[in-house]
Amino acid sequence: MKRKAIVLLSGGLDSTTTLGIAANEGYDCYALTFRYGQRHETELACAKKIAAHFGVRDHVIANIDLRAFGGSALTGDMDVPKNRNADEMSDGIPVTYVPARNTIFLSFALAMAESLGIRDIFIGVNAIDYSGYPDCRPEYIAAFQTMANLATKAGVEGDPFTIYTPLINLQKAAIIKRGLELGIDYAMTCTCYDPDIEGRACGQCDACSLRLKGFAQNKIKDPAVYRPVSHSL
Amino acid sequence: MKRKAIVLLSGGLDSTTTLGIAANEGYDCYALTFRYGQRHETELACAKKIAAHFGVRDHVIANIDLRAFGGSALTGDMDVPKNRNADEMSDGIPVTYVPARNTIFLSFALAMAESLGIRDIFIGVNAIDYSGYPDCRPEYIAAFQTMANLATKAGVEGDPFTIYTPLINLQKAAIIKRGLELGIDYAMTCTCYDPDIEGRACGQCDACSLRLKGFAQNKIKDPAVYRPVSHSL
Repeated sequence: MKRKAIVLLSGGLDSTTTLGIAANEGYDCYALTFRYGQRHETELACAKKIAAHFGVRDHVIANIDLRAFGGSALTGDMDVPKNRNADEMSDGIPVTYVPARNTIFLSFALAMAESLGIRDIFIGVNAIDYSGYPDCRPEYIAAFQTMANLATKAGVEGDPFTIYTPLINLQKAAIIKRGLELGIDYAMTCTCYDPDIEGRACGQCDACSLRLKGFAQNKIKDPAVYRPVSHSL
Repeated sequence: MKRKAIVLLSGGLDSTTTLGIAANEGYDCYALTFRYGQRHETELACAKKIAAHFGVRDHVIANIDLRAFGGSALTGDMDVPKNRNADEMSDGIPVTYVPARNTIFLSFALAMAESLGIRDIFIGVNAIDYSGYPDCRPEYIAAFQTMANLATKAGVEGDPFTIYTPLINLQKAAIIKRGLELGIDYAMTCTCYDPDIEGRACGQCDACSLRLKGFAQNKIKDPAVYRPVSHSL
């Protein structure tokens, strides 16, 4: 029987590549996605398409409302920053940081894993491009895993959980290269922090900038649909 | 200005005593309660009354659905065990264990705390009476706190979170004694795992048994309302 894994799937490039890696390693995958008060539903539509494409065993979309707590441009009223260069992006913790988001996501993944008898959890965090997010660093993931194995019946009984972060030390270009080797069609994925109602990416937020640069470095056109940018003559 | 704290409030005896302790220590308290697919809404009604009684600054009731993951008598279809003696209760992890429940609860408390600029979180876990729950032990709480301070902007920037567990080493009788000293009216609290539709306690589940024993040891009648037990002559 194939070993099972929970894969956190946002519908973005990183989590999709992570799902592709887990599937390629022979795991029977269960996808877990959150409706957490995002500005838009585009991500969820992408996640559903991607889960179906990979033929996951089950895809759970869990409703949680982080808006109640505020505190982020991704869930609140702050503006998503646009057209920042690499120096600006690496300068401190961005306003798109959602307090304790990965901790909440991994906690649900842990609950789902223990309920289903699964011990392997995959998350597509990346410490290189988003060095500003504290909950994307290896020391955080290690601390979560330690905590998880003290928190749970399975952990206490000597059948521990492992959190896998196959992208954690990869640059965006390397992530895309790995995904293309695995045959992933990145047209399915949604990266933009601020898509329009048709789901078209803005091309200007930090997430779009990093993605476009990653494709350019692979000398491949990004298959995502970008909306035209208005400009004065 | 008073220092602020988040207090996890289930509506039960332990969390209510914890709220009383935090308030008595001079904290400006914010209560956080979860609607997580419990068998009954009695707990939530109690939590609202208690939050109002203590005049908390705010009371957030967060909706999360743990039923999607199954795996517990408190959220699923398993029966709540009744009439167990102390030996039976201390024998292993009970079916009322909800996978990763306290981890999910503390993760939300952490998000709420960081959003509100709060650094102190109170949780009424107890390692004595419920020795079977892995996520009620001091080593788990310590690991969560370590993880929390790696997960968050505040933690990384040197303004760390502390998780307070004032009841962790107290027997139930000692918890009740402390609460009575603080003037807590335990008639407000709901402890039973299996109340009837009127909110009356069963008097027979592990939670009721421990509570009744705790009041008896204080030589005080439990002010909670218990339903009559049917029996043959």
